[in-house]
Amino acid sequence: MNLTIRELADAVGGETCGDDTRAISGIAPLEGDVPADHLVWIQNAELLPMAERTGAACILAPSAVTASATSLIRVPNPKLAFAHLLRHCYPESRPTPGIHPSSMVGADVRLGMDVTIGPNAVLGDRVTVGDRVVIGACAVVEQDCRIGDDTVIHPTAMLYRDTQIGQRVTIHASVVIGCDGFGFVMDPNTQRYVKIPQVGNVIIEDEVEISAGTTVDRATIGSTILRRGAKIDNLVQIAHNVIIGEDTAVSAQTGVAGSSTIGDHCVIGGQAGIADHVTVESRAVLAARSGLAPGKVLRSGSVVWGTPAQPIAEVKRQLAAIRRLPELRAEVAALRKALEEAGVPLPEGESRA
Amino acid sequence: MNLTIRELADAVGGETCGDDTRAISGIAPLEGDVPADHLVWIQNAELLPMAERTGAACILAPSAVTASATSLIRVPNPKLAFAHLLRHCYPESRPTPGIHPSSMVGADVRLGMDVTIGPNAVLGDRVTVGDRVVIGACAVVEQDCRIGDDTVIHPTAMLYRDTQIGQRVTIHASVVIGCDGFGFVMDPNTQRYVKIPQVGNVIIEDEVEISAGTTVDRATIGSTILRRGAKIDNLVQIAHNVIIGEDTAVSAQTGVAGSSTIGDHCVIGGQAGIADHVTVESRAVLAARSGLAPGKVLRSGSVVWGTPAQPIAEVKRQLAAIRRLPELRAEVAALRKALEEAGVPLPEGESRA
Amino acid sequence: MNLTIRELADAVGGETCGDDTRAISGIAPLEGDVPADHLVWIQNAELLPMAERTGAACILAPSAVTASATSLIRVPNPKLAFAHLLRHCYPESRPTPGIHPSSMVGADVRLGMDVTIGPNAVLGDRVTVGDRVVIGACAVVEQDCRIGDDTVIHPTAMLYRDTQIGQRVTIHASVVIGCDGFGFVMDPNTQRYVKIPQVGNVIIEDEVEISAGTTVDRATIGSTILRRGAKIDNLVQIAHNVIIGEDTAVSAQTGVAGSSTIGDHCVIGGQAGIADHVTVESRAVLAARSGLAPGKVLRSGSVVWGTPAQPIAEVKRQLAAIRRLPELRAEVAALRKALEEAGVPLPEGESRA
Repeated sequence: MNLTIRELADAVGGETCGDDTRAISGIAPLEGDVPADHLVWIQNAELLPMAERTGAACILAPSAVTASATSLIRVPNPKLAFAHLLRHCYPESRPTPGIHPSSMVGADVRLGMDVTIGPNAVLGDRVTVGDRVVIGACAVVEQDCRIGDDTVIHPTAMLYRDTQIGQRVTIHASVVIGCDGFGFVMDPNTQRYVKIPQVGNVIIEDEVEISAGTTVDRATIGSTILRRGAKIDNLVQIAHNVIIGEDTAVSAQTGVAGSSTIGDHCVIGGQAGIADHVTVESRAVLAARSGLAPGKVLRSGSVVWGTPAQPIAEVKRQLAAIRRLPELRAEVAALRKALEEAGVPLPEGESRA
Repeated sequence: MNLTIRELADAVGGETCGDDTRAISGIAPLEGDVPADHLVWIQNAELLPMAERTGAACILAPSAVTASATSLIRVPNPKLAFAHLLRHCYPESRPTPGIHPSSMVGADVRLGMDVTIGPNAVLGDRVTVGDRVVIGACAVVEQDCRIGDDTVIHPTAMLYRDTQIGQRVTIHASVVIGCDGFGFVMDPNTQRYVKIPQVGNVIIEDEVEISAGTTVDRATIGSTILRRGAKIDNLVQIAHNVIIGEDTAVSAQTGVAGSSTIGDHCVIGGQAGIADHVTVESRAVLAARSGLAPGKVLRSGSVVWGTPAQPIAEVKRQLAAIRRLPELRAEVAALRKALEEAGVPLPEGESRA
Repeated sequence: MNLTIRELADAVGGETCGDDTRAISGIAPLEGDVPADHLVWIQNAELLPMAERTGAACILAPSAVTASATSLIRVPNPKLAFAHLLRHCYPESRPTPGIHPSSMVGADVRLGMDVTIGPNAVLGDRVTVGDRVVIGACAVVEQDCRIGDDTVIHPTAMLYRDTQIGQRVTIHASVVIGCDGFGFVMDPNTQRYVKIPQVGNVIIEDEVEISAGTTVDRATIGSTILRRGAKIDNLVQIAHNVIIGEDTAVSAQTGVAGSSTIGDHCVIGGQAGIADHVTVESRAVLAARSGLAPGKVLRSGSVVWGTPAQPIAEVKRQLAAIRRLPELRAEVAALRKALEEAGVPLPEGESRA
C-alpha cells in the first residue's frame, strides 16, 4: 500500500484538510504504536487529541473535526469510510479457481463457473454450486445442498444434507449447518428418550455471514432460516426452527432456542440467551448476556438487559438499589430502634434483619 | 409420503375421528403456512382452535380432544406419537456401506460388517469398529479408540486416542471427544504453569447422542463418562472426570467443570454452569442459565434456577422483590419523614438512601 | 508402570515415610475405586483420612502430613509433584516423524527437521514449520502461517492465513485461529451492513495452550495476541485485537470482546464475559460467570464476581441481602402499621408493598 492522502480521500469521498500529498503506507489501530506514515481513524471528535498524539501522518475523522496540526480526511461516517478504505487498500484475494485433485466430488454435482474446491474437501451427491464459489480445504458439503454464486465456505466447515445457501454468503471454519435439532421425548413406559427425527433443513439467504464454530440446527419439520444479511458471530447456537431476521446481528456465544423468531435489524449482544418460542420484534436490542424466557414477546425497538431482560434503565435502577440494600436494612433497623425508644408499641421484628 | 389418516393412525396406535380415508402428503409445523394435505400435531387440547385454523387435513391430538371439524388422530401422548410418526414417514437412510478409497485406515484396525467410512476420514492404528458403523467424511478417530455397533460419527468429528464409544451412539459434526482436560499448576519457583498430563480417557455408553461442536475432555486419570442414553446438545463443555448420568439431557452451551457428577434422568437447561466437584443427584432439574458453585450438592428432584441456583419459586419471589425495591426505598424514606414530623427522635439517616 | 514408592519419591524430590519398597502400578483419582497397588494424592492434610480409606498403597501428601498407616511420599506442593509424577510415569509419545502421503503441502513451504504431518492435513503456500512440529490429520494451515519448534497442532484445527505461532504451543482439535473479527458497520443509506475487512492477524507466543473448539479472531488491523504461557480452555471466544497476557488462564466458554486487554498472571473463570475495550490488569481474578462492561478497567490483584463484576465479598453481601428482601418488606409494613395504630400521621403507603 502506497497512496497519498488525496488518493485515500478520493476513495471514500472525503475532504482533505492540511497537506494531502503525503504517502500513506498503512492503517494502524489507535491503540499501540502507530508508524509515522500510517493513517488512524476516529469515530468521535473527542478522540482527536488522542489520535494526534499517536504521531500518525493522517487522521480519518468525522466532519465535525475542522482543524488539526495533523492532515485530515473528513467524512460524515468515519467507521463506514474506514470499512471502504480497508477494502480499497487491502483488496480481497480470491484463490485461483480450480478443483483440487484431492477433493472428492459426488455424483450428479453441478458446478458453476470459476469454482474453487480446496484440497481434501468433500461434496456429496447432487450438490449444486454457483459461480465463483469457494469451498475450502477439508470442508464437507453433504448431498443435495445448494450453494449460491460468490459464496465462500471456509475450510473445515460442515453442511449437512439439504442445506440451502444463497449468494455472497460467508461461512467460517468449523461452522456446522444443519445438524439435528435437540429433540427427544421421554417414553413413560421405557423411561428412555425417543429421538424426534429432524427431517427439515436450514435455509441461509443472501449475504449472511456466519463466524467460526457456530452451529445452526436443521428444523424438525420445515426450515430453520437465516434471512438476508444476518450476521452471526463465533460460537453461537441457533436451534431448530429458529428464524433470524434480515440484517440482524448476533454476537458471540449467544444461544437461540427452538422455534424462536428474531425480527429484522435487531442487535443481540454476546452471551445472550433466548429461550424457545420467543418473538423478538424488529429493531429490538438485547444487551450482552440478556436472557429472554420461553414464549416471551419483545416489542419492536425495545432495548433490554438482564435475566429476565427488562428495559436497560430499569435494570440499572435495580442494580443501584441492590448495591445500597445493606444501607436500607440498617435504616429500617434504626427506625425500629427509634420507635422502641419513643415507646411506640411494635410487633416483634424480623429476627434476621 | 402418501398415506391415509387411517394408515398414519395405525402406525402410532392412535384412534381416528372423522374422515380417515384422506391421503396425507406431509407433516407441517403449527406455525407458518400449512399445506391443506398436511398433518399438524398438538400436545395440549387448548391448541385445538389454533390447529383447526391452519386448515390442515388432520390433527394429531391428545385423547382429551374428542371432537373437531378436522379429522383427528387421538393418542395418549402426541409428542411421542409425533416422534414415531416422523420415523415412520421419513425412514432414516443410511449410506451404502463401504470404505471410501480416500479414507486412511491405520494398522491393526478391526472393522465390523457393513461399515461405512467416508471420504478423507482417518482412523488411527488399532481402532476397533463395530458392525454397521458409519464414520463420516473428514472425521478423525485416533489410535486405540473403540466404536460399538450401529454408531454414527458424523463428518469432521474428532475422537482422541483411547476413546471408548458404545452402541447406537450418535456423534455430530465438529464434536471433539477426549481432548486434554484443562489442568495446570503454577510452579512457584518459575512463576509459570506446569501442565498436568491428562492420561485418562473418555467413555461414551450406548445410545448417547452428542450434538455439534460439543467438547468432552479426557480424564486426568481414570475416565470421563457419559452414561447410557445421555443426550448432549450443541456447544456444551464437559470437563475432565465428569460423569453424566443415564438419560440425562444437557441443553446447548452448558458447561460442566472438572470432577462433577450429574445423576440419572436430570434435565439441564441451556447455558447452565456447573462448577467443579458438584454433585447433582438424579431427577434434578436446572433451569436455563442456572449456576452451581464448586462442591455444591443438589438433592434428587430439586428444581432450581439462578446463580447461585435456588428453588425456582424462591428465585421468582426474590426477582419480584427486586423489581419493587425502589418503591420500598421510597416507603422507608416516607416513614422517616413522618416520624421526623411527628417529633420522634431519630438517628441520622442513610445519606445515600 | 511398575516403580517402587522410593523410585517415585526420587522422581519428584519427595521424602518417603513408611515402607517405600512396594511396587506401584498406577495413579488413581481419590474418588471412585482405587486399586490396592495404586497411588493417590492429596493437596491438603485434611484429606488424609479420606485417602487412607481408599486402601491405596501410597499417598502423595503435603509435608504437613507426618505420619500415616499408609506409605507416604511427602512434598511441599503435591499438585505440582503430581504433575511431574504423571509426566514421569506416562511419558508423552510423539508420533514417528514423517509427511503422510495423503497430506497436501503447498508451494514454497519450509519444513524443519523431524516434522510430522498427518493424513489429509493441508498446508498452504509459503507456510514455515519449525523442528519437531506435529500437524494432525485433517488440520488446515493456510498460506503464510509460521509455526515454531516443538508445537503440536491437533487434528481438525484450522489456522487462517498469516497466523504466527511460537514454540512449544499446543492447539487442540476444532480450534480456529485467525477467522475474521466480527466487524460490520450499518450503511445508513442502504440500511445494510458493510463488512469491515479484517486484514490483521493472530500472534500466539511460546508455550500457549489452546483447548478444543476455541476461536481466536484475527485483528481488524494489527494483531490479536496471546502472550507467552497463556492457557485457554475449550469453547472460548477471543475477539479481534484482544491481548491475553503471559501465564493468564482463561476457563471454558468465556468470551473476550474486541480490543480488550488482559494482563499477565490473571485467572478468568468459566463462562465469564469481558466486553470490548476492557482492561484487566495483571494478577486479577474473575470468578466464573463474571461480567465486565465495555471500557471497564479492573485493577491489578482484584478478585471479582457477578455482572457487573464487583469484589467477591460485596457480591456475597448483596446476595444475602436479596435472599432476606421479603422479610425486609414485611418489617417495613409492620412499622407502618404500628405507626398508624400509634396515630402518627403517614403519607399513603406504597400500594404494591
